Amino acid sequence: MENFEAWNPVHLHFGRGVTSKLPDILPQIGRKALLLIGKGSVKQNGIYNIVAGAINASGIEMIEFEGIKPNPLLSDVRKAVALGIARKVDMVIGLGGGSVIDSAKAIAVSIPGHLDPWDIFKRVVKPERALPVVSVLTLAATGTEMNQFSVIQNEETLEKIGFGHPLMYPVHSFLDPSFTITVNRDYTVYGITDLIAHSLESYFGEGEADLSDRFVFSIVAEAMEFAPHLLADLASYELRARMMWAATTALNGLTGYGRRRGDWTVHALGHSISMLFDTPHGATLSIVYPAWLKYLSSHIPNRISKLGTALFNDGSVDGTIEKITGFFQSIGSPVTLAEAGIIGNDRQKLLEHWVRVQAQGNIYRLGSVDYNFLLTHM
Amino acid sequence: MENFEAWNPVHLHFGRGVTSKLPDILPQIGRKALLLIGKGSVKQNGIYNIVAGAINASGIEMIEFEGIKPNPLLSDVRKAVALGIARKVDMVIGLGGGSVIDSAKAIAVSIPGHLDPWDIFKRVVKPERALPVVSVLTLAATGTEMNQFSVIQNEETLEKIGFGHPLMYPVHSFLDPSFTITVNRDYTVYGITDLIAHSLESYFGEGEADLSDRFVFSIVAEAMEFAPHLLADLASYELRARMMWAATTALNGLTGYGRRRGDWTVHALGHSISMLFDTPHGATLSIVYPAWLKYLSSHIPNRISKLGTALFNDGSVDGTIEKITGFFQSIGSPVTLAEAGIIGNDRQKLLEHWVRVQAQGNIYRLGSVDYNFLLTHM
Repeated sequence: MENFEAWNPVHLHFGRGVTSKLPDILPQIGRKALLLIGKGSVKQNGIYNIVAGAINASGIEMIEFEGIKPNPLLSDVRKAVALGIARKVDMVIGLGGGSVIDSAKAIAVSIPGHLDPWDIFKRVVKPERALPVVSVLTLAATGTEMNQFSVIQNEETLEKIGFGHPLMYPVHSFLDPSFTITVNRDYTVYGITDLIAHSLESYFGEGEADLSDRFVFSIVAEAMEFAPHLLADLASYELRARMMWAATTALNGLTGYGRRRGDWTVHALGHSISMLFDTPHGATLSIVYPAWLKYLSSHIPNRISKLGTALFNDGSVDGTIEKITGFFQSIGSPVTLAEAGIIGNDRQKLLEHWVRVQAQGNIYRLGSVDYNFLLTHM
Repeated sequence: MENFEAWNPVHLHFGRGVTSKLPDILPQIGRKALLLIGKGSVKQNGIYNIVAGAINASGIEMIEFEGIKPNPLLSDVRKAVALGIARKVDMVIGLGGGSVIDSAKAIAVSIPGHLDPWDIFKRVVKPERALPVVSVLTLAATGTEMNQFSVIQNEETLEKIGFGHPLMYPVHSFLDPSFTITVNRDYTVYGITDLIAHSLESYFGEGEADLSDRFVFSIVAEAMEFAPHLLADLASYELRARMMWAATTALNGLTGYGRRRGDWTVHALGHSISMLFDTPHGATLSIVYPAWLKYLSSHIPNRISKLGTALFNDGSVDGTIEKITGFFQSIGSPVTLAEAGIIGNDRQKLLEHWVRVQAQGNIYRLGSVDYNFLLTHM
């Protein structure tokens, strides 16, 4: 085991009706909130009314910014920063999925110093303060509700990158599984893919941490066991709850304690696909992972074998890769570029993007990757 | 899944040499520390010199209180509170095992309001403030380093009870596995028993929380797999590290999220044994658990069966109980009262204590327990 720090200050409220606590909690945090939402689905399904009602009942002032996109854009984040500065907000509330909450973090860390968010994400400036972030989650997927990370994309430079800072932990996160019941089948699937990928990215990192491995197996097994049940019964509160908590634990630190670092290559490669073809994030991960496992099979076969033994009682490398790929297929997540409509010359564009943009990032193992090998396997 | 809150503010530093961070961290917390230690083993094995040296290097003033006993006494806690008040300390550092850190918490929550610790533990007064607690752990066992709980015993009333309050989370905890290498075989065993018991107490609580069940299985399996290796190689840093982290995760909240409550009956019954016969805490748990499982087998056989399937690939209730009992025996932890020297009239004393003292507490299932049944099985 490597030395590590375990510290996660997020105060998380999980369960049915937890946003009814907002009127008690928000006045302890500030007086004027920037409320961030996506493209309006929360206004159609009634969640907005519940949450905005609770915010209003708290007596704090609310400035709204609507329109954060599923792969959140730097331009929207910048607009929201300008609005927050102009209106002198003292907290940011993200109501939505990972893109909204990631944006809320980027905005909150930019406002106090009047910083440009991209300068922060590109490590050009170091933030020293942040407004408190409150998250109200509507999608079980990214884990952003209980971590310090944010991912945004710069549509001018065609970069999608992540940034993490302790100032960016939400102070309170509200997870009501009933808020995820209207998520459609496709996005439910992509959330499951995302949480499994997060667990595996940690598992395939560097450093031996046996108990963290077991926690990975627990989370992945939970998702794989209950995914078919959930997809057969999207309105089940209990199954939504299980998947929501699994997604949070997949990226709140638990799976990584004692490792040197995770291996975020699949996410990096997937970001290129989202960037170029607007493919949903989770779908990019199920496309890249099988190819990545084939690549890893010649480098760290023992790790794949340990995973297969734990998940499938099958220690063979090929069998493990087949079963993981088969799981993604069984829930309807694409495992090839063609299934996502990425064909012909698109593949060449993707290769160029990988080489030109994502390989610039400081991502583990990425320097040595044979991109052509990967492309032929996806 | 039940509604729950997940919040654990402890900043935990794990690994070799982590106490070298003390000089940076302590001045952020206060100016004058009460340093609490046990009966002096840290002075013999050199750990005291390392930690006291780091405290002195931090420039803060240090008032020392030595002599906390393994089952910590209220009288010692009261003396330390008086010392802390007299010397106007502004933080409490616990250097030792669970008893020292539990005492540090009880002291820290008593000093600001000049409260009597027993009034707090008996819920007669509610604490409103606490001094910050810093823990430096020397024993992998109780999990107190990352939770809000404390257990002390009142030698006048013969009560040993626990109390928890959010004010009592340590602000920083330092876990250097090399500090546990001088722990002798017996106390290493009792620590393993304790962490397994904590995991099971959570598992046998009320409410269905499947992922938390999986985390329980992970922690117990980790302990069971590596215990024999550790006992064969007590000086192994890596094995000490694995057991130390397992012990922390067994009682830092992780195993309980989504349950209504844990079942702390085995701890309550074990406390009577410690109280009356000064038996080490971990040893009392391996004595009580097999009997308790036999009692549970007629009430919740499915839970025992699920546990056995996960741990031993054996879903039979009797087989599971046998294997858990066999594990405790295999590491040399007593599984009967007689093995701990509790014989003859002692058993009657124990029965009377259970009825008179521990059943007064508000402990799940305790009201309906057939004490004679339990006694005949231990």
